Amino acid sequence: MAETVKRVQIVFQPSGRRGEIEAGKSVLEAARTLGVGIEAACGGARVCGKCRVVVETGRFEKLNLTSSADHVSPVGEAEKKFLTAEELARGYRLACNAFLSGDLVVTVPEESRSAKQVILEKGRERQIELRPAVKNVTVTLAPATLSDFRDDARRLLDALEKETGLHGLTVDFPVLRNLPEILRQNDWQATATIWQGKEVIRVAPGRRETSLGVAIDVGTTTLAAFLCDLTTGAVLAKASRMNPQIGYGEDVLARISYAASEPDGRKKLQDAIIEAINALAADMAEKAGFVADDVDEMVLVYNTAMHHLALGLDPRYVGRAPFAPAVREPLDVKARDLGVKINPSGNVYSLPVEAGFVGADNVAVLLAEEPYNSDAVKLIIDIGTNGEIDLGNKNRLLSTSCATGPALEGAQIAFGMRAAPGAIERVKIDPMTYEPRYKVIGQDEWYPVPYDWHPTVQKVGAQGICGSGVIDAIAAMHKAGVISKAGRIDAKLNTPRVRRGESGKLEYVLAWAKETAVGKDIVITQADIRAVQLAKAALYVGAQYLMERYGVDHVDEVILAGAFGSYIDKESAMAIGMFPDCDLSRVHAVGNAAGDGARIALLDVEKRREAAKVARRVEFIETAAEPDFQKKFMDAIAIPHAKDKFPHIE
Amino acid sequence: MAETVKRVQIVFQPSGRRGEIEAGKSVLEAARTLGVGIEAACGGARVCGKCRVVVETGRFEKLNLTSSADHVSPVGEAEKKFLTAEELARGYRLACNAFLSGDLVVTVPEESRSAKQVILEKGRERQIELRPAVKNVTVTLAPATLSDFRDDARRLLDALEKETGLHGLTVDFPVLRNLPEILRQNDWQATATIWQGKEVIRVAPGRRETSLGVAIDVGTTTLAAFLCDLTTGAVLAKASRMNPQIGYGEDVLARISYAASEPDGRKKLQDAIIEAINALAADMAEKAGFVADDVDEMVLVYNTAMHHLALGLDPRYVGRAPFAPAVREPLDVKARDLGVKINPSGNVYSLPVEAGFVGADNVAVLLAEEPYNSDAVKLIIDIGTNGEIDLGNKNRLLSTSCATGPALEGAQIAFGMRAAPGAIERVKIDPMTYEPRYKVIGQDEWYPVPYDWHPTVQKVGAQGICGSGVIDAIAAMHKAGVISKAGRIDAKLNTPRVRRGESGKLEYVLAWAKETAVGKDIVITQADIRAVQLAKAALYVGAQYLMERYGVDHVDEVILAGAFGSYIDKESAMAIGMFPDCDLSRVHAVGNAAGDGARIALLDVEKRREAAKVARRVEFIETAAEPDFQKKFMDAIAIPHAKDKFPHIE
Repeated sequence: MAETVKRVQIVFQPSGRRGEIEAGKSVLEAARTLGVGIEAACGGARVCGKCRVVVETGRFEKLNLTSSADHVSPVGEAEKKFLTAEELARGYRLACNAFLSGDLVVTVPEESRSAKQVILEKGRERQIELRPAVKNVTVTLAPATLSDFRDDARRLLDALEKETGLHGLTVDFPVLRNLPEILRQNDWQATATIWQGKEVIRVAPGRRETSLGVAIDVGTTTLAAFLCDLTTGAVLAKASRMNPQIGYGEDVLARISYAASEPDGRKKLQDAIIEAINALAADMAEKAGFVADDVDEMVLVYNTAMHHLALGLDPRYVGRAPFAPAVREPLDVKARDLGVKINPSGNVYSLPVEAGFVGADNVAVLLAEEPYNSDAVKLIIDIGTNGEIDLGNKNRLLSTSCATGPALEGAQIAFGMRAAPGAIERVKIDPMTYEPRYKVIGQDEWYPVPYDWHPTVQKVGAQGICGSGVIDAIAAMHKAGVISKAGRIDAKLNTPRVRRGESGKLEYVLAWAKETAVGKDIVITQADIRAVQLAKAALYVGAQYLMERYGVDHVDEVILAGAFGSYIDKESAMAIGMFPDCDLSRVHAVGNAAGDGARIALLDVEKRREAAKVARRVEFIETAAEPDFQKKFMDAIAIPHAKDKFPHIE
Repeated sequence: MAETVKRVQIVFQPSGRRGEIEAGKSVLEAARTLGVGIEAACGGARVCGKCRVVVETGRFEKLNLTSSADHVSPVGEAEKKFLTAEELARGYRLACNAFLSGDLVVTVPEESRSAKQVILEKGRERQIELRPAVKNVTVTLAPATLSDFRDDARRLLDALEKETGLHGLTVDFPVLRNLPEILRQNDWQATATIWQGKEVIRVAPGRRETSLGVAIDVGTTTLAAFLCDLTTGAVLAKASRMNPQIGYGEDVLARISYAASEPDGRKKLQDAIIEAINALAADMAEKAGFVADDVDEMVLVYNTAMHHLALGLDPRYVGRAPFAPAVREPLDVKARDLGVKINPSGNVYSLPVEAGFVGADNVAVLLAEEPYNSDAVKLIIDIGTNGEIDLGNKNRLLSTSCATGPALEGAQIAFGMRAAPGAIERVKIDPMTYEPRYKVIGQDEWYPVPYDWHPTVQKVGAQGICGSGVIDAIAAMHKAGVISKAGRIDAKLNTPRVRRGESGKLEYVLAWAKETAVGKDIVITQADIRAVQLAKAALYVGAQYLMERYGVDHVDEVILAGAFGSYIDKESAMAIGMFPDCDLSRVHAVGNAAGDGARIALLDVEKRREAAKVARRVEFIETAAEPDFQKKFMDAIAIPHAKDKFPHIE
């Protein structure tokens, strides 16, 4: 029956992936179309014999499908070479050489599955296919003799091409330097690390199992880094540190100006960030029992300005209309060309830039959240010093950026700090007594413990407040009536927590000096509240514009992302009016989605191709130039929600 | 008539190249097969319209051929796009789109000729097609606007691809750094330097005409360098200097040992040579009114050991059996990866290595002399610290190497120096008086002038003796009877020129202190003579072995090459027995053929492909291991020729 139709059904087991494929295509092509990973070292050239699959026969009731060996092309010569008679009898075929003529159920045996699946342990469950850019291949060479004139490089490449079926492999130049010694060290057995199936970027004596990659979300304020085992997808270590460029300017415009006007400004900024990247890589490698030179691949994501500043590209024209970046396309740069101290032949991959300030970090967020595969209209807010907002679904995808400032990351706040042990990350305030309770990173219990108003011993004293703590604090202060809708602290409250600080401005004491590790009262100032209001208003207005442009008055889902280290409390975020109202059950805080996206691109090169497509597809909306921007922005500064719940607050 | 045969005749005018080509091939393919250069920026993809040729019609008596518009395929769509009706009427076609069906005479108009021909001004006349690896292309871009989201890199590549028809161009990463400023500097007009039709390695504002390349013969003792204008092939400057590695060992084995055993030995040796290369490039660029950064391409040739030491490759296994190099294939390495200070994105090309000690320098000699295109059996002797010898013709090509030592380059000789102003380069001795006459580099007249035995004023005083002077001196001493066949100085001669030096050993005074610029008598010592004898014996025996292996008892032609700076005197060379006897009219001294070969590879990338083929084809013969080597070598130490002409010498 199927023979007479143009398209046929194919189901891959055990993944259950299913689709309609044009008759005449190979099983391998069908697998690729449907995203089923089949090992094919030779890329379908019929020389490696690795893409072994089993054609199942019979009537599959559940699948509503009859599969038969007659539904594929007859066994070819290439297959007779790689498969035994017994295997052929059992239905084994090479996926590259079996062409579809009818409906088929195909089992991909474990050894032929190219991609293990891994799950990011953070955020929502995300399955990633494990298809890293680098692969270790161990070979044993014929030793050099007087009658075999081959040079060491050719000898190695011949063995690798024979082993993998890959043709035209090259050796990155620096790898040649110690090749003679390395090949002879373990009696001509060596492991080559092959990048993207085309270039040898490392040769180690004997068998080498280590295969490491690093993903870094290079934020304007914070760098968040992951060291991954590329053979398992596991995160071996994590690290974060402040962006040292802060010394040259708090925001990207200040840094662009520094780069353009100071002598060696651009180089100083690049050196600062590269040094931080190197320190992160070295720290993480050491934690996991390796050295940074063991790392073979790195993925960087950043906004457009940070992208230019980290890569040493002239950033001036990114900061002024028409905001043309030097380069938008994804970049593969040798680590040594960037001064990045991992394997010097290793590749540093940058995700593509979208447009204007919407950079590779937002592409990473999209990779992690995949709104382009969704029916529901999603609003994705990536909170950072530059906020990025995406809105859309599989039909259309819009994005914009807004200057949020670092307040939501805990910076430029009187007692702000990054999310690290000692940071207050959660805050609640009793509306009757105005007494707070808070939770410090590094200690499981809240302080003070509930129903016991006597202070317990703090194992980790509070040192400051991180981003999620700041948002919680503002939301809680508003709910408790400590601040008004306009954000003003109520001076008339009967509590020692509200007082005038040294400058005479009002402040709220979150922690008394004795509870802290810094020996000072930790306070939220009126200025802090203002900074948070400006930041959240910018995000709110950005989302409003995208909704207007998309033509929706509500969104199906809200995703809150940001490199806070700790998750933002979605209720607090909505309470302070960070985004348009949405059913709270459809609001998700996912943590550092840009970092997750960077890791996804590190573990699965197919996702890099997806990223390039997505970056081209997203429509960038410039909002700051809209005529009613100022009005919308002022309207959004107020704190909207507590009023309904606490009607005594005006 | 021609329509019925499989192969057709084609003649290209004005070059007159002619050949039989399979019917159905395009005129462009025919041109390539016959080595006729036709401009085809798009590589035959039918998009650039540059490969315009004129199909001639009529009976060409001299060529014995009838050419007709019917002998090619009808005019296609691509041609109608690029050619006017008038041009079509005049017989214009695009070579890529005109397919042969019969005999044809085709004129390639000046504007379509891809390769200008240049002639190396040194050595014998050598025509080189000018097809350099780099090409400047000037384009004017559409300026960036808010409605055109392209980044600067894409904008440039789009314009370049449109202009050249080249697809998939990339930009070398460091070029991106200043791209934004460069593109805007001259109102969006810029010149890109494209390497090998695939990578942009420089972008300059406005129109840039400069296109420079450097070729260097990196000898064990001497580096000889050329700066060439890649748009004309002209040599703009030349320079040479001693190989600074001499401080680490006179010969390559000593240096390999230093590299292997001393701390940082390999790096020190590489740094020394790279520093010398950088100094040569900077000196030449300055002489010609440029800076080294203007240089876009460099070609290096060297023996296998120097190849490894200059590139920083582990050299240990090159120095011991089975003499496997780390890499034999030609290398393209970014200048920045070698520390070579030209355009950091420029390419440093190394010619391929043959085998053992026969390196890229010998491949360069072969490129220059092309014995593989010759009927005559040629013996090519490249004299250097490592001598390389080739023997053969288009049927078969053998090569070997021998340890000559630096004596024939004037080094390790009491008053030896490199060929520079002040060096005695020619010597004659009167057989009656034993008085010498000599010529100094930098002064046209011999000293003393003939028929006037009173010293004339030396404008350039002698400072020492270079390689050609040493060979001349030994030959002249022997002819004059100052030394015996065995090389011993005759102590009994009645001349003050022969005396015992400070060590008590005999020496011959070539120049009295008052004639020199060094204030000392310049002498040839008994040890100098011995060193030259050992060197020339090594070359002689190498040639003998190759002739035995090839099965000839004489050669049709002898080529004497070497980086002497000045040409060797072929008669003197034969007189001291440097090579087997040959009719003197068939002996040619060609100077630095390796340097010429390096320049050829610099100016014509096609020759690089030829080099790769030749390197694979040459049969390497290991002679030192032959059982009768020692006997042959001892026999070759004597100085053979003067005896017949001066029978009184025993």
